[in-house]
Amino acid sequence: MTDCLGDEAGDMTPMDLYEKLTSQGDTVRTLKTEKAAKADIDAAVQLLLKLKVDYKQVTGQDYKTGCPPSECAVSQDNGPAAAAADGEDMVDPWNVSTTNAKGVDYDKLIVRFGSSKIDQELVDRIERVSGQKAHRFLRRGIFFSHRDMHQVLDAYEKNKSFYLYTGRGPSSEALHVGHLIPFIFTKWLQDTFDIPLVIQLTDDEKYLWKDLSLEDCHRYTVENAKDIIACGFDINKTFIFSDLDYMGASPDFYRNVVKVQKHVTFNQVKGIFGFGDSDCIGKIAFPAIQAAPSFSNSFPQIFKGRKDVQCLIPCAIDQDPYFRMTRDVAPRIGYPKPALLHSTFFPALQGAQTKMSASEANSSIFLTDTPKQIKNKVTLKLFYCVISIIIPLIAVLYLCLQDYASGALLTGELKKRLIETLQPMITSHQERRKQVTEETVKQFMTPRPLNFNF
Amino acid sequence: MTDCLGDEAGDMTPMDLYEKLTSQGDTVRTLKTEKAAKADIDAAVQLLLKLKVDYKQVTGQDYKTGCPPSECAVSQDNGPAAAAADGEDMVDPWNVSTTNAKGVDYDKLIVRFGSSKIDQELVDRIERVSGQKAHRFLRRGIFFSHRDMHQVLDAYEKNKSFYLYTGRGPSSEALHVGHLIPFIFTKWLQDTFDIPLVIQLTDDEKYLWKDLSLEDCHRYTVENAKDIIACGFDINKTFIFSDLDYMGASPDFYRNVVKVQKHVTFNQVKGIFGFGDSDCIGKIAFPAIQAAPSFSNSFPQIFKGRKDVQCLIPCAIDQDPYFRMTRDVAPRIGYPKPALLHSTFFPALQGAQTKMSASEANSSIFLTDTPKQIKNKVTLKLFYCVISIIIPLIAVLYLCLQDYASGALLTGELKKRLIETLQPMITSHQERRKQVTEETVKQFMTPRPLNFNF
Repeated sequence: MTDCLGDEAGDMTPMDLYEKLTSQGDTVRTLKTEKAAKADIDAAVQLLLKLKVDYKQVTGQDYKTGCPPSECAVSQDNGPAAAAADGEDMVDPWNVSTTNAKGVDYDKLIVRFGSSKIDQELVDRIERVSGQKAHRFLRRGIFFSHRDMHQVLDAYEKNKSFYLYTGRGPSSEALHVGHLIPFIFTKWLQDTFDIPLVIQLTDDEKYLWKDLSLEDCHRYTVENAKDIIACGFDINKTFIFSDLDYMGASPDFYRNVVKVQKHVTFNQVKGIFGFGDSDCIGKIAFPAIQAAPSFSNSFPQIFKGRKDVQCLIPCAIDQDPYFRMTRDVAPRIGYPKPALLHSTFFPALQGAQTKMSASEANSSIFLTDTPKQIKNKVTLKLFYCVISIIIPLIAVLYLCLQDYASGALLTGELKKRLIETLQPMITSHQERRKQVTEETVKQFMTPRPLNFNF
Repeated sequence: MTDCLGDEAGDMTPMDLYEKLTSQGDTVRTLKTEKAAKADIDAAVQLLLKLKVDYKQVTGQDYKTGCPPSECAVSQDNGPAAAAADGEDMVDPWNVSTTNAKGVDYDKLIVRFGSSKIDQELVDRIERVSGQKAHRFLRRGIFFSHRDMHQVLDAYEKNKSFYLYTGRGPSSEALHVGHLIPFIFTKWLQDTFDIPLVIQLTDDEKYLWKDLSLEDCHRYTVENAKDIIACGFDINKTFIFSDLDYMGASPDFYRNVVKVQKHVTFNQVKGIFGFGDSDCIGKIAFPAIQAAPSFSNSFPQIFKGRKDVQCLIPCAIDQDPYFRMTRDVAPRIGYPKPALLHSTFFPALQGAQTKMSASEANSSIFLTDTPKQIKNKVTLKLFYCVISIIIPLIAVLYLCLQDYASGALLTGELKKRLIETLQPMITSHQERRKQVTEETVKQFMTPRPLNFNF
């Protein structure tokens, strides 16, 4: 940790200031991670803000992470790392934070990311094309943004099918309820459109980013797969894979990883993900591994070598940087761009400013929690966050939240309802999970043909 | 992403100048190689010198090959890319060049790389331990440098065996005679010590570095494997693998790649290999793939999961940067450091300043050349280079070269001898190569146990 106090900004070059800012950003992050005293954090944040003001005075530009002053003038990237600069929300695969107590402004995010809003017209169209009532996550704006969804539907109407790709970084044994959101929705998409699904568990990523052994990461993968399978996926339509296993089991997958790696420079991942020179080369190359499942010939056992089957990725919006990169590369290596459906992410119990983390025991309601733990967490924690998790999950009217906000619903009553709904829901998930044997996991995770003709 | 350069010629950035300088350096080299008119060469050199002066004015630094302006200031490494700066020889996996017409100074290289000279004492010891006369490449200083070879022999004397790892980047269909050097020597080591051998063909590397398709790189791999097999390797002791195939066939190999990738930063590969921000992420991560075969548990089918079998790598000295990195990482991930035996590399027909390249038709004597082509090349080209290739290969007395240099051997006589020795040697290689069927290649390249108990 560098101490930045006591320097005068006036004499400093833009690069000096840039480096001070970067280092101060690290300091703030470290203090937060280490749960330092609030006063210390506040002081560090204040210094950070002061440095940003100085920086703007000296350079005429906003400070952007990963973009030193000389480069910023021509940087055309509007990625999340860059955007975090001017007090905007910070949203990338490893950091979600906002200075706004109400949480991330998703409409602004759509503009910044250049995606499209899921409007009523699109929801109606999905209902028309599928002949099914749209899922509540679509109707309630949990999935709120998309890329190229109309194109997917155009093709589907002409009998050109597509496949689904989603995933998860297995950073701990236990999932929390927020983690189920993409899987619940993905299952609905799969059932509704009758299409294959691949689920990537990025145990290699977790090994690279966290202080975990390869063995732990792989064990979490198998445990997480059980929770995912417990959501009810059809074994005839679903392939779940660990990167650590599948990379070493599919030359076609690796070929696509190398193709992407050839077409993305360090400059680009620096701009998109904020990587720096002291990051390990594994992190730097990893985005290609998350990109590869977007291309159907990464799964020759499913798509019989076809490289042109359209991919649709339902994921939380913080994963979008990976797929912006993927969509940029795709046409250059002769593949269709994957389409996307973005969900909001689900705030932690500590507050709306960050997303839930599987790594912190008290930040979430976990799928392994006992009824008593659920009761305690809902009763004692900042349960307004819980609401945003639970309401979509249990299909209680969204208005309920507004009732509560307006005072029409009493706190005690709301807590009671939540506990009563959560306890059986999680208990029954735990029951289903118990049914998932090692053998079933193995079956889901074996590369094999699925019940589709492509 | 666009880069940061301005495009006005009058107002050149350091990076503009750097690129102009690099390109002008190439021009000068090409003119010299092609023996252009002296006036043309002089003019090109003068422009080069002028650009160097401009560069120093603008950046305050001396121009360094392979080291773009923004990075030079922070480069802390004394690796090959950096060392090329002050008129020293440039030796790294992609560039071998020297300003000295006699060729690279290998004694200086030993000092700079921090390796040890293969002295008479080591040669004698190898003879004692193996009970065999040392190979002529050892006796004549073709293999001239090592790391930890005494340690390998200490262990071998205590019945602790080791394995061999060598490799090749398949950049074209045809190998030249210089490419056989490491394989001829490796075969001798294998026969002498009766140990397993793994041969890595880095088709992924060639795809990342060259303007080649994945399919071409993989085809070259298979063709090159035939030439390697034709050297006479025992199928019961030898595993040859394509990265593009084996990475996708061995989860254990990929796990070691990720382990190395986690423990090497971009700063480090920048220092060691001269990578820059505009290099693709595949190049940046690749060194881990060349490192992984140094660890025995990358081949569980051979070593039954053991991670502690010592590795010995015979290779040309230009590959050393990869293995300095590997040796740095090894203890941090719980593996023994690989030992090394370094050979000189073999200069091109155009002159002693560069190494032979498989990509230029006239730079070498290829294993596919007809007797007539061999005759023409030896007769017409700068055959003093051929001597340094041929003499070790055919075991003609090394003194022969000194005779020639001293005038005792006439040019015509030397050419005649070379042609007479080369023609049957290459013809017989071609015969042996014809015997190598696709089936044999497949057998060598199938992951399988070898005839050893570990």
